[in-house]
Amino acid sequence: MDHFFKVKSLEEVMVLADEFSPVGVETISVSDAFSRVLAKDLVAQKDMPGFKRATMDGYAVTAQSTFGASESSPAWLDIAGTVLMGEVPETVVLKSGQAVTISTGGMLPKGADSVVMVEHTQLIDETCVEVYKSVAPLQHVIDASEDFAKQDRVLSKGIFIRPQEAGLAAGLGFSQIQAYKIPKVGIISTGDEIIPIDQEPGPGKIRDINSYSLSGFIKEAFAIPITYGIVKDDPDALKKAVEKALDETDMVLISGGSSVGTRDYTVEVLSSLPDTQMLVHGMSISPGKPTILARVGKKPVWGLPGQVVSAMVVLKIVVIPFLNRLKGLENLNPFTRIQARLTRNVSSAQGRRDFIRVELTNQDNQMLAKPVLGKSGLIKTMIRADGLLEINDNVEGLEKDTITDVILL
Amino acid sequence: MDHFFKVKSLEEVMVLADEFSPVGVETISVSDAFSRVLAKDLVAQKDMPGFKRATMDGYAVTAQSTFGASESSPAWLDIAGTVLMGEVPETVVLKSGQAVTISTGGMLPKGADSVVMVEHTQLIDETCVEVYKSVAPLQHVIDASEDFAKQDRVLSKGIFIRPQEAGLAAGLGFSQIQAYKIPKVGIISTGDEIIPIDQEPGPGKIRDINSYSLSGFIKEAFAIPITYGIVKDDPDALKKAVEKALDETDMVLISGGSSVGTRDYTVEVLSSLPDTQMLVHGMSISPGKPTILARVGKKPVWGLPGQVVSAMVVLKIVVIPFLNRLKGLENLNPFTRIQARLTRNVSSAQGRRDFIRVELTNQDNQMLAKPVLGKSGLIKTMIRADGLLEINDNVEGLEKDTITDVILL
Repeated sequence: MDHFFKVKSLEEVMVLADEFSPVGVETISVSDAFSRVLAKDLVAQKDMPGFKRATMDGYAVTAQSTFGASESSPAWLDIAGTVLMGEVPETVVLKSGQAVTISTGGMLPKGADSVVMVEHTQLIDETCVEVYKSVAPLQHVIDASEDFAKQDRVLSKGIFIRPQEAGLAAGLGFSQIQAYKIPKVGIISTGDEIIPIDQEPGPGKIRDINSYSLSGFIKEAFAIPITYGIVKDDPDALKKAVEKALDETDMVLISGGSSVGTRDYTVEVLSSLPDTQMLVHGMSISPGKPTILARVGKKPVWGLPGQVVSAMVVLKIVVIPFLNRLKGLENLNPFTRIQARLTRNVSSAQGRRDFIRVELTNQDNQMLAKPVLGKSGLIKTMIRADGLLEINDNVEGLEKDTITDVILL
Repeated sequence: MDHFFKVKSLEEVMVLADEFSPVGVETISVSDAFSRVLAKDLVAQKDMPGFKRATMDGYAVTAQSTFGASESSPAWLDIAGTVLMGEVPETVVLKSGQAVTISTGGMLPKGADSVVMVEHTQLIDETCVEVYKSVAPLQHVIDASEDFAKQDRVLSKGIFIRPQEAGLAAGLGFSQIQAYKIPKVGIISTGDEIIPIDQEPGPGKIRDINSYSLSGFIKEAFAIPITYGIVKDDPDALKKAVEKALDETDMVLISGGSSVGTRDYTVEVLSSLPDTQMLVHGMSISPGKPTILARVGKKPVWGLPGQVVSAMVVLKIVVIPFLNRLKGLENLNPFTRIQARLTRNVSSAQGRRDFIRVELTNQDNQMLAKPVLGKSGLIKTMIRADGLLEINDNVEGLEKDTITDVILL
């Protein structure tokens, strides 16, 4: 099948995310909202906070009564009562020249439009307070609809729910929300040289690293990895494993095998499944060139390199955006990128996107990116790395001291 | 008690993390290692990979047989066999002038020290291959102990286990590892104005946001939040709730209440518990000044501001490093900071650490930090914010276009 395919650029692969859709929607408790993706806009049903609310401890007043007040010429206000927390003020309507004691979070009585901080006052007696500083209308006050007004769209479909969004949804009274379902990702390790981790590897054998590292990246992306163990370099066994994984999960990763013929039969096996389209057979990125992507039914199936470092880089850079599509995220590439200064020249081939492992150190408030030494197949290079430096297809490398983006690992 | 305490700087508070210890150690499956903290150094029990391993498809050779080889003057090598994946090479000892077919990941026979890439060869017949490029010893080969040597400390106690560290631990045969236990964090919301989220707030009332937002930040830090509901502004009820939370969790957060007297009785309640030491009663940070920290037995108990934004900022900036201590992390402040250019002047009080909410946008490869507009008590400011800009105690603000660090939210 090889000759039907042209190696694709990273951009050409990324647009293929449009071939796939979110895995579905479910209703969840807002207690479980953190790390989920919102599936339906949240619209405020009422104003928030819903009443004029003090943001300081002090006295609720009409701002006008304080105009011109200063240390040398204080305003004298009559104390008309106290606002109890969580209660409607007893003072039904506050008049000019009056003040009521209020705490942060308290509800202003009608007529009051601002709060004088307690630090700018002096209590004369139970009935009178001196004010040394004027306030403007709405000063130290959150107005009834200042955080959100009724009918405002407060959170949009497709956002990742951070702690603050979970808090806001709760504060608006959404004890349940519509969220996209969490995708399940099947992981199959292949290769005659791969053995389970609890076995002692004889010469030529190596323990299964990919099942564990790839699972970790899937968890890091707040999805659910399901491992299907190790499959020998045998098309029938691979087909059986892929069919089972496709039956039980929303996306399948096949890592390895490393032997020359394996890539070909991975394509053969995938092509033999019903309703399958080969989308990618080789990418112009390094590491990760031999990556395969097929659509089987509605599900993406990836053939990842068996080499452990390549598999991790491809998963992080290429697979995660597709996972984000399945998760319903609007932004498929929310990688955290930081700018850093390169500590030495790095070379790169034109026409290929390179991802260089770098250590990050902060020197005099300048982030330095130091390329990790060691052959690219060594897992220790990924252990030492704090990030991946991306070198574009159209350059032959980057010079020392270039300021460049690093994707955090 | 107020007068016994001096407001502490952020640095003075941070050193108090030394008052606390990790919550304990347990044995876990390496399948669950991602996001945990390693509690015991991992030392390689054998060399890794343990044999000379090919990193390219091609021919295993003695480098010497290829010296001087070029397009115009190729080296001719005798094919002495094929290495099967995961098998010990049949060719027991490779001699100079010989080559064996090998795939990426295959084991080199004795005598072979390098691999010629298949792209640099031409097969003449079954017995002979032309080589057009010389290789150096160990080229396209990972040596037996090149990733890790027996007795190497490969991972250190106190590190956060990323996907690659989980993969490495598995690859070294550690199917179980020693990890620090995951701290449980009790969360208590207080305040007479706070109602459960499934109730309709009457005037002056507000739904409980902090239980949900703070839980989210605890989950984000890979710890376990346990909520204890809402406690009215009543010392006896608070004491009961704190005792229960202390009994069941490793750290307790009390958020609010907002009323003037509450902070005082939070201190009173904590002081009345056995073996208690008040450590912090006010911090010179904004938002977050009224923060309280006590050590009750071996556990930290925090009084956080009730105001929702302040509570979140204090949790993120101040509490998380203490949680990291409980988790056993060596690095207590692994915040992701990125550098950005400020889009306008921001003022700040000297002698106070300010945390300004900012939106981040990328303009012509330059990250811009735009302070979020709106009163500091509005939760929407935290929704809009991508990060917190830290302004040091000893400056009065930052000018537009200053390049500064932003802590990602």
